[in-house]
Parts: sequence; C-alpha cells; structure tokens
Amino acid sequence: MENKRVPEELDPEAALGLLDRAEFGRVAFLADGVPTVRPVNHVLLDGRIVVFTRHTSALGRAVRRQADVQVAYQADQIDPGTRTGWSVLVAGTAADVSRGPHAAQLGLQVQSWMKLPLDMVIAIEPQEVTGLRLAAESGGPR
Amino acid sequence: MENKRVPEELDPEAALGLLDRAEFGRVAFLADGVPTVRPVNHVLLDGRIVVFTRHTSALGRAVRRQADVQVAYQADQIDPGTRTGWSVLVAGTAADVSRGPHAAQLGLQVQSWMKLPLDMVIAIEPQEVTGLRLAAESGGPR
Repeated sequence: MENKRVPEELDPEAALGLLDRAEFGRVAFLADGVPTVRPVNHVLLDGRIVVFTRHTSALGRAVRRQADVQVAYQADQIDPGTRTGWSVLVAGTAADVSRGPHAAQLGLQVQSWMKLPLDMVIAIEPQEVTGLRLAAESGGPR
Repeated sequence: MENKRVPEELDPEAALGLLDRAEFGRVAFLADGVPTVRPVNHVLLDGRIVVFTRHTSALGRAVRRQADVQVAYQADQIDPGTRTGWSVLVAGTAADVSRGPHAAQLGLQVQSWMKLPLDMVIAIEPQEVTGLRLAAESGGPR
C-alpha cells in the first residue's frame, strides 16, 4: 500500500486563510518551564489570533506571568482515511488584551464552544507563518 | 444558539485507549528555547508513544540535543459541526531509540504518511495522561 504523501509548503497568506476558516487550533506554550499544548477556539482578527480563556487556565497563567510570551499556534484538517489535508503553524507572542478596548466583544467573537465562565482574551501576534498541504496527487491536478 | 459544551474529564486509561486508536497527533517541545508543535504519526507500543522522524527535523534536533527532553503529546478528534469529540494530552519525556533493539521495525510500525526518508525513532514515556470529552448531552445518556 503506497499512499504516502509528500508535504507541499503553503505560502503564509494561504496558510493564514486556512487558519481563518478553522474554528479551533492548539496553542503550545511553556507552563512552569515545561512545554504543553491546549486545544482552543480562535478567531483571526486584524492579523492576530484571538482566543478566549480563563485567567486560571494553564494558558492564562502563562500569559499573565510574562508579557509577550512566546507561543506556537497550530491548526490542521487532515482526513485519516485519505491522508489528505493541511496543517498550519504560527510562531508568535501572546499577550493579555482583556483590558484593551472592546475586550468583551473580542472575547465573544471567538465563539468558544466551552460552557465555562471565560474572562481572559489573549491575542497572539504572528511572527512566522508556515503551512503544508498533503495532497493525493503531489504536483498533479487537484 | 446554545450548543456549548461542558468538558468531561477522561480517566487516563480511557484517554490512552483513544490515543491508541488515533493515527496522528501533535508533539509540543522546545526548539532553540521557543515552544513549538508538530503534527506526527504515532503508534502506542508497550505504553510508549513512538514516532518516526528525521534526525534533521526540529523534533529530531531537540531530542538529540538533550536526553529525556520534556515534551507534550496531544491528539484530538473533534467534529466542528456537532462540537463533540475528545482531546487527549500526555506530558512525558522523549528519547532517541534509533539505536535500540528492533529500531527499524519500530519505525515501520508507526506507519508514517510522509514520503520522506525517515531515520529516527523517538519514544515518549508518559508521565501524566489527561483527557476530556465534549458530548452533546453532558451527564445524560450517550
């Protein structure tokens, strides 16, 4: 069974377009010095990835501890059946924008799926955006 | 539209069972001091998460740099349409087992989807396993 894939690089604009249409992704960050990762809902607003969480969550604590903390944000949509899809990775800095203008509206725009009291809006400023696509016919017509 | 979810905690055994049936996940680690995350295929063998990569990949370099480096491994299966599914998170240490017994067979068991020359088998030893389920009827019949 030869159905392996050659990943094709996406340009940053295409990658951000895919991220824009996704409803959730995963944020990787340091929690007490140890790398961890959490699934979260997001919305792309003015080029920033906005997430809505709680001050007491692991991500909330990491962002409160240090201004502009380094994070990675990843989203993908991959079908295990066909082994096709895409993955996008953003390296950037995360900041608490809960006290910024329109923070409440910002948070609601995220449309979190969680039935939890959320009180912290975090914005991730992208520094580097990369992405790859897995297609059945690499280089061929799609 | 009230279709928010209350995440239910999974016990570690149930979480590992879901991870076992998944074909890929995402590993979070430190690359040059900065948290990052990469999608990879995995297989669960003898309680360890085994991935197959290249010595030159970001993950390969991180694991070569430091023995038993701290990583997080995450997999999920969430349907954005119904907002139901699960997410599993493993905190653990990763080690290069490419020179261990049966390394070649181990690597092939991972069944990587990538058409790339892979030469490094990494085993993640779980330290902590957590998981959550998003269900439509929290606490109700499923």
